[in-house]
Amino acid sequence: MLSISDYRDLFLSHLQQEIIVRDPKNLYQPMDYILNLGGKRLRPVLTLMTADFFSGNHQDALKAATAIEIFHNFSLVHDDIMDDAPLRRGKQTVHEKWDLNTGILSGDAMLIVAYQFFENYPAETFQELAKLFSKTAIEVCEGQQYDIDFETRDDVQIDEYLKMITYKTAVLVGAAMKMGAIVADASKQEANAIYDFGLNLGIAFQLMDDYLDAFGDPNTFGKQVGGDIIENKKTFLYLKTLENLSEDQSMQLRHLFSITPEDTSDKIKVVKDFMISSGAADQTQKEIEFYTQKALEILDGLSVEHTNKNILRDFAISLMNREI
Amino acid sequence: MLSISDYRDLFLSHLQQEIIVRDPKNLYQPMDYILNLGGKRLRPVLTLMTADFFSGNHQDALKAATAIEIFHNFSLVHDDIMDDAPLRRGKQTVHEKWDLNTGILSGDAMLIVAYQFFENYPAETFQELAKLFSKTAIEVCEGQQYDIDFETRDDVQIDEYLKMITYKTAVLVGAAMKMGAIVADASKQEANAIYDFGLNLGIAFQLMDDYLDAFGDPNTFGKQVGGDIIENKKTFLYLKTLENLSEDQSMQLRHLFSITPEDTSDKIKVVKDFMISSGAADQTQKEIEFYTQKALEILDGLSVEHTNKNILRDFAISLMNREI
Repeated sequence: MLSISDYRDLFLSHLQQEIIVRDPKNLYQPMDYILNLGGKRLRPVLTLMTADFFSGNHQDALKAATAIEIFHNFSLVHDDIMDDAPLRRGKQTVHEKWDLNTGILSGDAMLIVAYQFFENYPAETFQELAKLFSKTAIEVCEGQQYDIDFETRDDVQIDEYLKMITYKTAVLVGAAMKMGAIVADASKQEANAIYDFGLNLGIAFQLMDDYLDAFGDPNTFGKQVGGDIIENKKTFLYLKTLENLSEDQSMQLRHLFSITPEDTSDKIKVVKDFMISSGAADQTQKEIEFYTQKALEILDGLSVEHTNKNILRDFAISLMNREI
Repeated sequence: MLSISDYRDLFLSHLQQEIIVRDPKNLYQPMDYILNLGGKRLRPVLTLMTADFFSGNHQDALKAATAIEIFHNFSLVHDDIMDDAPLRRGKQTVHEKWDLNTGILSGDAMLIVAYQFFENYPAETFQELAKLFSKTAIEVCEGQQYDIDFETRDDVQIDEYLKMITYKTAVLVGAAMKMGAIVADASKQEANAIYDFGLNLGIAFQLMDDYLDAFGDPNTFGKQVGGDIIENKKTFLYLKTLENLSEDQSMQLRHLFSITPEDTSDKIKVVKDFMISSGAADQTQKEIEFYTQKALEILDGLSVEHTNKNILRDFAISLMNREI
């Protein structure tokens, strides 16, 4: 297996070959733009890694990895419209740089183009990849719908939240890895196990994101610390805090999550104090630990070369120790 | 082969079985809503007909027909957002009945669900259908993009317009029929011929739509007669008129297509007079005739049972003689 940065470089140079701005330009330029905005390229890197992990060849996984990354970017373009987000990775979002219609239509085209990348595989593999892809893609849509529904509900339960992030985020991580396994011709059992590894890692990753949003280092965290609090987002951290607080305090917290003050520093401070004093911050860290451990146990159970296991384990742990 | 109305009934009862409003309801209810708004069901009927035409079984084509109809409805939902249309078949459009985000997200889900309907076929057939579907779907997006681009251009050429309607409308008719051929295990040559038949029929159909929009009988035409003129749409009819007119008159017509008067009756009358006096109305009818004939010649060339050919020929001719 190669290093993470080697996989990333390999993927990026392949992506450059694949992105061609054809006519009509207004359809394909936004695609080129969003795909070149950067990012960790976590999902395609995991596809390539997993192919090698199961003694396959990461070269054969490049097309599947591209499909996954294009799908991920499709969901960013449409989500940014739904969230009315002006910026993505510090740059203008597609619907902001162009317009609403361009965001919708180029997003649609990206979803279709993603499917086309599987056409490079033989019929049986194609069907297996496309089926997994469709199942995953529809779950991502369902996760996004739950996320939207939760905005206007004040009785969201923690298990509902976990289901939402599983669908919206984790299934795509699981699918990215399973595609690597499929291309490497791993057994059904191995492919399913690595899917579960990715799924649990994806949940831990999202919970970590929620945690860092409140408690990350402002100097290294990419986004504004406290952003979720400002936007009244019902994250695991918030829901757990609500669960732990006395009725009085929980009413106070609910109130804070119903307002959007001009000066946000007070609100952020009070909410974070609640998150810590209620024990929810610690419990969130434990929850992250729990899902990470679950992932690592699945990894342990696989009969794969030790060096390969260690690389994947180290990568998983590094993701959980990140500050960004 | 069965009658058109039998195929339509068969399709509709199958569609009812397939549409299940699962959770999250806000994602699947709009899908159920738009699919039940009615319409001619032209595309899925053609898929079923074509399967029988090539001595296959229309039952085997039901899943592909459903995919085609769901894709068509996906494109209606997203197009209605882009066109800011409040009504579709006399009922509220999805983004109007719900909201923008619901329109985007449930549309996305429909596109994915359409792909899932091909999963019912064996791997080789699945790949063939999904490849054709992706190629067609991306062309439909390109057609929609050209259509948007044309709105702000005043130098659109007739061949560009024909390419636009080919992509936006005709390729899906061709693909609907080719899918019937694929499911019926027709030869590659036959499948391609029936695609070309559908493509030419689709172009004729769209030109007929443009023609009826200006010259249809207000009592039988489903939409407001003159709607394209009111909205300054650069149809074949308009472009041909422009081509035929003297420089003076063409300036007058261009001016009329740059304004949106409160009272539209005068504008409609003057434009229609131009369309007739310039010969463009007649030429449009000839163009419809040309593409219909092209389709029928392709049909003639096929070595298929005569009764079947006659049914398809009669259907094609009835589409061109419609008043709605």
